[in-house]
Amino acid sequence: MKNYALNLSQVPAIAFGGPKVSPDQPSSESQKIAESLVLVEFVADLSNSLLPKDPLLRAKARLFIETVSSKLIPAWYASSSRGESTDNILTGIEAIQALLPADGYAIGEWSIADAAVTPFLARAEVALKNDLGAFDEGTGKKAWETLQADPKFERFRKYFTAVKTRKSFQETFHEVG
Amino acid sequence: MKNYALNLSQVPAIAFGGPKVSPDQPSSESQKIAESLVLVEFVADLSNSLLPKDPLLRAKARLFIETVSSKLIPAWYASSSRGESTDNILTGIEAIQALLPADGYAIGEWSIADAAVTPFLARAEVALKNDLGAFDEGTGKKAWETLQADPKFERFRKYFTAVKTRKSFQETFHEVG
Repeated sequence: MKNYALNLSQVPAIAFGGPKVSPDQPSSESQKIAESLVLVEFVADLSNSLLPKDPLLRAKARLFIETVSSKLIPAWYASSSRGESTDNILTGIEAIQALLPADGYAIGEWSIADAAVTPFLARAEVALKNDLGAFDEGTGKKAWETLQADPKFERFRKYFTAVKTRKSFQETFHEVG
Repeated sequence: MKNYALNLSQVPAIAFGGPKVSPDQPSSESQKIAESLVLVEFVADLSNSLLPKDPLLRAKARLFIETVSSKLIPAWYASSSRGESTDNILTGIEAIQALLPADGYAIGEWSIADAAVTPFLARAEVALKNDLGAFDEGTGKKAWETLQADPKFERFRKYFTAVKTRKSFQETFHEVG
């Protein structure tokens, strides 16, 4: 078994190879991986979990991540950083909601799809409900209220509640700064 | 085995499930996957090849694709579509060259890393050497000549030649339009 040190203190990164050292003091002899999606796949490969064996379900998990990356995250940054309408965020949420099965996580069982997108969704929620962003005053909070109450987003709400109530999330996400 | 139909005629897409039909007439009952990177992972999972078992090599393959996507492709579109300097393309090539091992393909053996990036590189080469793009006249061709001759890009040239001389590439890529 190779020596893998996981360091989540700042930017998520994994150092592999090199001598056995403390994760907060990575060796210059180890190599580093610092891309979130590469990391979740790496952890899935190492743990032999987080992704089912069925190629179709694996593809669905990756398509879910891809859809969040291409449809939701750009809308999020356009709105929160450049002040574009928060309506586009809701459209992005609809796109990912359309991929969700009737029940359960993104592909039914818990997978890299959920692991990859939950931190983003949680941070976005904190910003929206506190109206923190370049969007017009009040529109962040309004978008959050729509997500909370509109029957259209019922499946998304159920999903988001499911991922947020997992113990691993509760233990590592601290909403109050 | 599920029914997988591969259609590469326009946008790469895979239709899965549903009745057995011709690939150019996908059934409305099948599901579709149409994201290139999701597809290469899907084919790797189905074929049980294209990616080695070692989690570290798998991560390196994905990091290579991620680096092309984040460092080279944006520079390419900025230059070819919006007329920004072709120097940024060369900088992107340097970034991916830095990831290459001394010999062989992106992670040594042929993998999804090479499969994912070869078509992009080949199309970019055709555009550069024919000076086709929004960049200043002559600068596309000049960048291509630099890639051909500058000792700095020797490893990249060796890599690019290796992927372009594969039979599968020769049979499917037609440079003359």
